[in-house]
Amino acid sequence: MSAPSRYEFGAGLWLFGQFIDRYATDAYGPPVGVLEAIDRAGQVGDLVTLDINFPFDEGVSTADIAAALDRNRLRCHAITPASYSRKYRKGGLTNPDPTLRRDCIELYKTAIPSARELGARYVKFWPGQDGYDYPFQADYEDLWQYSVDAVREVAASAPDMQFGIECKFKEPRTHMLFCNVATTLLAIEDMGVDNVGIVMDLGHSLFAKETPAEALQLAHRRERLTSVEVNDNWREWDDDLTVGSVHLIETLEFLHALRKIGWDDVVLLDQFPFREDPVQAARESIVTLRKLDALLDRLDVEALREAQIRQDALAAQRLVLDLFLGNI
Amino acid sequence: MSAPSRYEFGAGLWLFGQFIDRYATDAYGPPVGVLEAIDRAGQVGDLVTLDINFPFDEGVSTADIAAALDRNRLRCHAITPASYSRKYRKGGLTNPDPTLRRDCIELYKTAIPSARELGARYVKFWPGQDGYDYPFQADYEDLWQYSVDAVREVAASAPDMQFGIECKFKEPRTHMLFCNVATTLLAIEDMGVDNVGIVMDLGHSLFAKETPAEALQLAHRRERLTSVEVNDNWREWDDDLTVGSVHLIETLEFLHALRKIGWDDVVLLDQFPFREDPVQAARESIVTLRKLDALLDRLDVEALREAQIRQDALAAQRLVLDLFLGNI
Amino acid sequence: MSAPSRYEFGAGLWLFGQFIDRYATDAYGPPVGVLEAIDRAGQVGDLVTLDINFPFDEGVSTADIAAALDRNRLRCHAITPASYSRKYRKGGLTNPDPTLRRDCIELYKTAIPSARELGARYVKFWPGQDGYDYPFQADYEDLWQYSVDAVREVAASAPDMQFGIECKFKEPRTHMLFCNVATTLLAIEDMGVDNVGIVMDLGHSLFAKETPAEALQLAHRRERLTSVEVNDNWREWDDDLTVGSVHLIETLEFLHALRKIGWDDVVLLDQFPFREDPVQAARESIVTLRKLDALLDRLDVEALREAQIRQDALAAQRLVLDLFLGNI
Amino acid sequence: MSAPSRYEFGAGLWLFGQFIDRYATDAYGPPVGVLEAIDRAGQVGDLVTLDINFPFDEGVSTADIAAALDRNRLRCHAITPASYSRKYRKGGLTNPDPTLRRDCIELYKTAIPSARELGARYVKFWPGQDGYDYPFQADYEDLWQYSVDAVREVAASAPDMQFGIECKFKEPRTHMLFCNVATTLLAIEDMGVDNVGIVMDLGHSLFAKETPAEALQLAHRRERLTSVEVNDNWREWDDDLTVGSVHLIETLEFLHALRKIGWDDVVLLDQFPFREDPVQAARESIVTLRKLDALLDRLDVEALREAQIRQDALAAQRLVLDLFLGNI
Repeated sequence: MSAPSRYEFGAGLWLFGQFIDRYATDAYGPPVGVLEAIDRAGQVGDLVTLDINFPFDEGVSTADIAAALDRNRLRCHAITPASYSRKYRKGGLTNPDPTLRRDCIELYKTAIPSARELGARYVKFWPGQDGYDYPFQADYEDLWQYSVDAVREVAASAPDMQFGIECKFKEPRTHMLFCNVATTLLAIEDMGVDNVGIVMDLGHSLFAKETPAEALQLAHRRERLTSVEVNDNWREWDDDLTVGSVHLIETLEFLHALRKIGWDDVVLLDQFPFREDPVQAARESIVTLRKLDALLDRLDVEALREAQIRQDALAAQRLVLDLFLGNI
Repeated sequence: MSAPSRYEFGAGLWLFGQFIDRYATDAYGPPVGVLEAIDRAGQVGDLVTLDINFPFDEGVSTADIAAALDRNRLRCHAITPASYSRKYRKGGLTNPDPTLRRDCIELYKTAIPSARELGARYVKFWPGQDGYDYPFQADYEDLWQYSVDAVREVAASAPDMQFGIECKFKEPRTHMLFCNVATTLLAIEDMGVDNVGIVMDLGHSLFAKETPAEALQLAHRRERLTSVEVNDNWREWDDDLTVGSVHLIETLEFLHALRKIGWDDVVLLDQFPFREDPVQAARESIVTLRKLDALLDRLDVEALREAQIRQDALAAQRLVLDLFLGNI
Repeated sequence: MSAPSRYEFGAGLWLFGQFIDRYATDAYGPPVGVLEAIDRAGQVGDLVTLDINFPFDEGVSTADIAAALDRNRLRCHAITPASYSRKYRKGGLTNPDPTLRRDCIELYKTAIPSARELGARYVKFWPGQDGYDYPFQADYEDLWQYSVDAVREVAASAPDMQFGIECKFKEPRTHMLFCNVATTLLAIEDMGVDNVGIVMDLGHSLFAKETPAEALQLAHRRERLTSVEVNDNWREWDDDLTVGSVHLIETLEFLHALRKIGWDDVVLLDQFPFREDPVQAARESIVTLRKLDALLDRLDVEALREAQIRQDALAAQRLVLDLFLGNI
Repeated sequence: MSAPSRYEFGAGLWLFGQFIDRYATDAYGPPVGVLEAIDRAGQVGDLVTLDINFPFDEGVSTADIAAALDRNRLRCHAITPASYSRKYRKGGLTNPDPTLRRDCIELYKTAIPSARELGARYVKFWPGQDGYDYPFQADYEDLWQYSVDAVREVAASAPDMQFGIECKFKEPRTHMLFCNVATTLLAIEDMGVDNVGIVMDLGHSLFAKETPAEALQLAHRRERLTSVEVNDNWREWDDDLTVGSVHLIETLEFLHALRKIGWDDVVLLDQFPFREDPVQAARESIVTLRKLDALLDRLDVEALREAQIRQDALAAQRLVLDLFLGNI
């Protein structure tokens, strides 16, 4: 675990919080306060930075957060306003009630000073309630316009701050408006601002049926890649499993793509270890990420490039599989 | 809504309770006690029976439940022990801890007297935490044997009571052991008891990639169809939408199959109207079910039979589509 | 079938040809020449226009095609060069061999005079072999650049002609580069030409997990909607079934979106009736389309708009379902 | 490639034949006769046995096949009657025409003497045309009964011969009747004969959304596992890619399950290398299989068993991932 690594690692703070779902309504474990969650993150030992939900727990100040981060040698990487709680269950940016849409925009704006104070690299839009559940439920033009206008307004209000949209295919809505990388890039274009990009989540990409490496390069080509989150799933849902647990080869391809685009920034864990110890779950993902990245050091990049120029599937596969199997 | 109908309708009581998920951790609405939920069910006006989770709220007796049902002119259709709450987050029937497996069996046994007292037609197994999340996590033989043994023991302890297993592909686990109708029929066979059948859920069948009408007939052919639940989804997740909202044709085919097997029993709603009024959501499903069933009265069954003997897709489709479109 | 209709109908000529797949290698029926296929199309009686593959059969001239169309009172709607046959099995626009990429571009250019002569509205790119099958097989930047450059070159060579890209998620490749509407819009933007748009295929949209009505409006909003094709499938593959046979509600929503964007042009059938009579299969789709469109005449558009402003799923669903069920 | 291996390898002979699909109707390469295909299989160097389609090419006798096998040091593993060609496009075992159903049964019976003469271990049912494409198209009871009766009759006619059913979710039909392992086990039970089992195809299992290791153990537990075929895909279609190219971890888990059930028989390749050299594609899969199996020699089986007893996902994952990554 102490091997040097190309990347620093971060995590969404929710990884260390309390999990609940519609069945275990008594939650998968006891409540965890935000400061306690930061201490748990500190126990991982290999994390340097956190994406923190906003607002913080009642009675917890930005200074308290800063102190907790400090005592755990952690930084604030991003602030994610909670535009997905009960109040916004029918939508944050796209709520049919204009008052609630306004409230949601204000929620994002309110988060910006805290983000600045904590040195966050970006404020994250995670508009999970913005979409629809049923055919014919919504006017897609309205949803698009509401979303584009709201993000634009927030971003324009703080040109010094970066913003990132974490797109996802679905959940909690059956359909999210910012459903995949390409659609979100089009929306960002419509916004006409410079400080909005994409938070590319490997797992979201897998279950949106994208090829994650390809989607990453698409966002990068458009100069709209703000951040990178990783995990794994079974490609039909956002299972938020540990990294590499199902799609080992595509995870390697994603890391290979990160090298190709010259990514040398933080890579963040986005996991929901409902039934596992979160500190251990984070550690396992980091171990896997480091080993996968070290594997890439052994990749014969020239040979792969040759194979890809020929689009030679068998040759490319052999190179890659022998990274995993080659010493046998 | 007052049209006569072939079926009586019931519902899972959860339809009228509080919804929560991992994002809106403050829930989609305020808490709803079990007695209040029964009153809500009573407001639907067209429900006659309920599937009720067990144990009841603290301080609520079986007699209290009976009284609440009575004042709403409702019956108890089934009792569903909560083998999916925090205690059983790593499994109920298949928990790695033998003490918890034993506790889970006892939970089911404890529910039986209440089920008898309330006149329930069956006790339902909904083993949502029984499965696995990761490759290599579990020994599939163990899981199978634990499940088969546990259900057998419960069923054998109460030969006068019927039991039903509600199989589902996944959620909250990424993989449930009783994942579809065929697998569950094999497990029931291994149990070697007469009083265990299948609670066939239309939505679960859709997202297990079964053809629901075909799966229903399979369970019926084996004489293991205990109950029928209905809803709709987008075929990748158990979205628990109102009936017919996405798969109108397959819902009609399912109702047609119910006629073919001579089902004249209750049909239960299994919905999670996170963002809708539950009473209205239940009413809408019942309206749709009644109208779909009335549509079947107009179906030229002989002509359909002729088309199916020829396996003539176009002829069969025309007959069915013209039920929906024919008066144009 | 003689009811007046908002739309004229066309079809891909392949609907009337010989079908083959990897199992029935002796084909699903005897060979069908292009002129015979046009005659079959003429038998449908309700088709006005065809999308015709290019080059034509050996020995068949453009004049022969024109004559066959004429005698069947059909027009040529589009020309689709066969950049997916054996020669291009490893790619047309993106073939690793620059000579073959060049040949493919020339194939498209060669088709343009015939398209002009036949009065085609557009030349269609259907780059089914352009993509990849395996992880790590291809450099996604190369594929993107090859595709963008090739389409741009063809389009720039004939500014008087319209071009349309028919995007699809997969098949025959496991991954196509122009995989969905949003990605293709981004590529078109990169081309920087005015005469390239999207041929939006309802079925392709369904199995790319788009909401077809939403994707249609997205292409329209960007003023890049060139043409519309329809069919149905089971949402995991391009099954090319008759219209409305599985996704009746989403097909209606798609037709509703066509009205919203003011589409008054041809709607084309894209079907592969492997085991059905193609003339009858085409007729059935047209009957269904006309009836669905007539159903929309009864839709209370104001009430739907009201429901959508509130994003009221139950109200919107009731309005829509009662179109199908309301007269019961 | 010369490392000793637990398994001998075989292949479906189609791997070395001509590929065609509905787009490249001029095929992906020139025609390949059955004897030439056997010679190609011989070139792989590591194959010992073949699954051969029946009837053979016109003018090719069983003795010719035997000679071709002999000169390539190959054996006949299985005979697969072509109940999926044009004649049976509307069904083989389940064709609506009783004459064709009879013909299909006779086709299977006719294959038996050749299978005996060639020393085949089993005759394979691959009923790809037996199913349905549209909702309401077929009476599922009829299809079930036709299938069960037909297989029973064939099997009962040759009690000395083993038969295996290769189940698959779909293709060329949108729905196959023998869609997955559990359903097929139920059908075999209904047949009431001892000499019918399952040909378990790893890829078919993946895209039927089974966990292949679990499905394998299910078939084994019922003592109905006749044969094993391997390949990979993207889990939505039977892409027939080289082994381990997408689902490396689940392929390892499948091989682990083969060890658990004590499989020491042949493992057969089932691939369609449309755009690759088939001899090389076969070799690559065998290399991967041998290396994966060698990896299992290093697996700490006791530690895995301990982890699985605890259902400890993180511990099990670490053991498995470190097989792939551990030497870093």
